[in-house]
Amino acid sequence: MGLFSKDIETLDDLFVHTLRDIYYAEKQIEKALPKMIDKATAPQLRSGFEKHLEQTRGHIARVEQVFEMHGVEAREVHCPAIDGILEEADEVSGEVDNKHVLDAALIASAQAVEHYEITRYGTLIAWAKQLGRNDCASVLAQNLKEEEATDEQLSRLAEGKVNRQAA
Amino acid sequence: MGLFSKDIETLDDLFVHTLRDIYYAEKQIEKALPKMIDKATAPQLRSGFEKHLEQTRGHIARVEQVFEMHGVEAREVHCPAIDGILEEADEVSGEVDNKHVLDAALIASAQAVEHYEITRYGTLIAWAKQLGRNDCASVLAQNLKEEEATDEQLSRLAEGKVNRQAA
Repeated sequence: MGLFSKDIETLDDLFVHTLRDIYYAEKQIEKALPKMIDKATAPQLRSGFEKHLEQTRGHIARVEQVFEMHGVEAREVHCPAIDGILEEADEVSGEVDNKHVLDAALIASAQAVEHYEITRYGTLIAWAKQLGRNDCASVLAQNLKEEEATDEQLSRLAEGKVNRQAA
Repeated sequence: MGLFSKDIETLDDLFVHTLRDIYYAEKQIEKALPKMIDKATAPQLRSGFEKHLEQTRGHIARVEQVFEMHGVEAREVHCPAIDGILEEADEVSGEVDNKHVLDAALIASAQAVEHYEITRYGTLIAWAKQLGRNDCASVLAQNLKEEEATDEQLSRLAEGKVNRQAA
């Protein structure tokens, strides 16, 4: 990323830039999840995070597939948004003493991560379709579907069990 | 927030902490929107951002109302997540040369902001209900409803017009 040049000229450039942003984000999430698994107490939350770590590796592979389909180099660009979301997750969890309250905080943090991914994949899919790349859109839609399902599972776990234990 | 003390002991503490986080976030968004209005080209996007700036001021007032209802001091805590999301919005828009592509980038950034707010209000509403504060939940639900509507309007504007002009 040049500080003094404007690198994004076309919607295609913006699509590739944002693909590199979510690629960076997915890799940061892959690094963050093991720490969240360690902190979680409720068995369902731990296993949910473990399952999502596996899914995240699949998401990274799908993003790499889209780079290849689109004929561009698979590389990351720094994404301050996911850094901030993960930094906040770390800060908040470091301030919580009670293990049940910590589970509630971890779910909130994980849902903030999911929503970031949901919005980015939603945007990427719309742009891919506009660029005539329905093939890329359909690969990205598989990631979006899994992120949305994870978000819903986290809501169910919070409202069905974790929040009650925390209260 | 103390670096060496654990300040969050109960779900109520976590609720208040997160309310202070969204309070900070809403105030940062209030500061960021005028810059986004200046950068936007499509008249519908400018007027959409202007409308959302008015709504954001209403959201701040509602969050202040919830502080008062819950009997706690209305103050902000630093929220690295919204800082990162807004920093990324600024970085990306600074790299886009074409005004139609910039509109598409601005919509994507605004939707990342909306999704952050959607996840935080969703969490706060669930916690308020668990804490027996349905009154607070129902005020927060008004903010959530407006954030979701804004996100949908941005999607419609992108898919119906802005992305086509950018391509």
